[in-house]
Amino acid sequence: MQVNPECPLARYGEARHTVVMDLIARIQARETRAIARALTLVENGDATFLTALDAEYASLPHPERVGITGPPGSGKSTLTSTLISELRKQQKRVGVVAVDPSSPFSGGALLGDRLRMGEHTLDPDVFMRSMASRGRFGGLAIGSEDACEVLALGGFESIIVETVGVGQSEVDIARMADTTVVVLTPSAGDSVQALKAGIMEIADVVVINKADREGAERLEEDIKEGMELRPHPPAGTPMWQPPVVRTIATEGTGASELLAAITSHRAFLTSNRLLEGARLRRAESRLVDLAGAGMLQALKQGGRAKALFQAAKQDVLRGTMSPRAAVTSLLKQLDL
Amino acid sequence: MQVNPECPLARYGEARHTVVMDLIARIQARETRAIARALTLVENGDATFLTALDAEYASLPHPERVGITGPPGSGKSTLTSTLISELRKQQKRVGVVAVDPSSPFSGGALLGDRLRMGEHTLDPDVFMRSMASRGRFGGLAIGSEDACEVLALGGFESIIVETVGVGQSEVDIARMADTTVVVLTPSAGDSVQALKAGIMEIADVVVINKADREGAERLEEDIKEGMELRPHPPAGTPMWQPPVVRTIATEGTGASELLAAITSHRAFLTSNRLLEGARLRRAESRLVDLAGAGMLQALKQGGRAKALFQAAKQDVLRGTMSPRAAVTSLLKQLDL
Repeated sequence: MQVNPECPLARYGEARHTVVMDLIARIQARETRAIARALTLVENGDATFLTALDAEYASLPHPERVGITGPPGSGKSTLTSTLISELRKQQKRVGVVAVDPSSPFSGGALLGDRLRMGEHTLDPDVFMRSMASRGRFGGLAIGSEDACEVLALGGFESIIVETVGVGQSEVDIARMADTTVVVLTPSAGDSVQALKAGIMEIADVVVINKADREGAERLEEDIKEGMELRPHPPAGTPMWQPPVVRTIATEGTGASELLAAITSHRAFLTSNRLLEGARLRRAESRLVDLAGAGMLQALKQGGRAKALFQAAKQDVLRGTMSPRAAVTSLLKQLDL
Repeated sequence: MQVNPECPLARYGEARHTVVMDLIARIQARETRAIARALTLVENGDATFLTALDAEYASLPHPERVGITGPPGSGKSTLTSTLISELRKQQKRVGVVAVDPSSPFSGGALLGDRLRMGEHTLDPDVFMRSMASRGRFGGLAIGSEDACEVLALGGFESIIVETVGVGQSEVDIARMADTTVVVLTPSAGDSVQALKAGIMEIADVVVINKADREGAERLEEDIKEGMELRPHPPAGTPMWQPPVVRTIATEGTGASELLAAITSHRAFLTSNRLLEGARLRRAESRLVDLAGAGMLQALKQGGRAKALFQAAKQDVLRGTMSPRAAVTSLLKQLDL
């Protein structure tokens, strides 16, 4: 984990620990530039900074976290922008992390995001950052959680994590947020059978964006049908009925209703003492992510693990062993 | 790794090894039902079957592998279907693995895939399977590679791996295929700047599907511009210029041109002796995937690793340690 040489911090060399501690203090003092710099260090997986951030773990505030996800083209970014406006009316400082599941296809969408976030770019109490995930093993989840912690340290009262809902990413985001908003749009013709599968398990609030389009009625019926298929929680556990909110994000229509729905979900969590349990589950899955990433890194950096992995690789490249057989033997030798 | 209890094999109990060896023989005899059953075992991560499959590793044939990826709605499945028709004209047996990056949003699309594959469902020389990825660590890549090996064992001469191009999935698929086809569609208005980022690095053949739509001309220009930005290979390495093929998959237009482009890319790989190197790179990244998955599993199943992981988890849940600090300590104790 090396710091990006283009980062100004790299120049400091030996004094990096002091510089990083100073950076932490400046984040706590809510300096926008310090927060931006810290998020670059997070993206680069800078070990010194992450260790310093980690030292603040026990005293970190727990701002509310809202996850926003949906298929490409559902208008998530515009909706995020209108939600920011609503939160600003309540004087809340808002931090946004837009997570790019590092697709060749989604690069442009994020550029678009930034443009659409335009109206808030001059507001010092709104901070927005697009992050690409690095690497393959839990990278997206690890980096975005680190980013949320930086924003928490920076005193943001509301954190929005936005990601395109394809692949594993939206499940990661749902784990990371207290309240998950799933954004859908009416589309004439398309089958909405898909809805019934997994969406309802992660949605706390469902938004029908572009609600003036044909098919909104049918989409809402499908959503409500899908909700009936949700697995029931264990007996005695309070059950949340996800509200369906219609919006036209480009016109700001429905934004206050969306915030009201998010607020009432949070009230549900608080009154049923569910927030703490969710945070513990989050800590546990973060533990698994970090352990997976750490063990994999050991194969490249470690002593024993690296030597054994290199030997396994030679066997595979020589064709004397299959990858699976080589890994079985590697794991046996590592004596995990 | 337990076999799904609904699988007929589960009944056999003690005799499972024999049953699995029999299954391997029946796959080699090209029995469709045996192949279908094997792919279910692959999806379930059945250890007995995977070990038996692995024993065939050195003698597995290496059929040509074509990866097809592109954004949602680009018509990948219809295009795959027309490509199958072309391959069938050459009397080739075709196996298709459609990989679902387990998204709540993509579930329905796959159902659609199956319907659109309809015209080939009665052809005993075409085998098609949708696979969902299980778990988080390299799960998609590991399972699809296993599936390709089953199809290779079953004597399929052409294997098509199809996946929606979002997130990590299309990079995995590109690694898995000899020839990667990226499918795009003209869309008036949308920025195609995104193209320039990563697509050109994975594409061996670019398809402009729905080429009768407005914007095909501009898309082709953008693609060609993007190609000029590709990193150059090391000096002395032959460079492939990805052809751009226009298709209208719903009418079968351009299908023979697509197959010709794929065939000529394969000829390029063969004449420059590049196939073997690609296979070795594939084996190496598979080694990393399997090692990562295996080490993570050890945290749940192993002796030493499990005990240490449980202790780390207690520290985190009690709040006495941050997840990152707990993992650092765990890794130190594991002495990797």
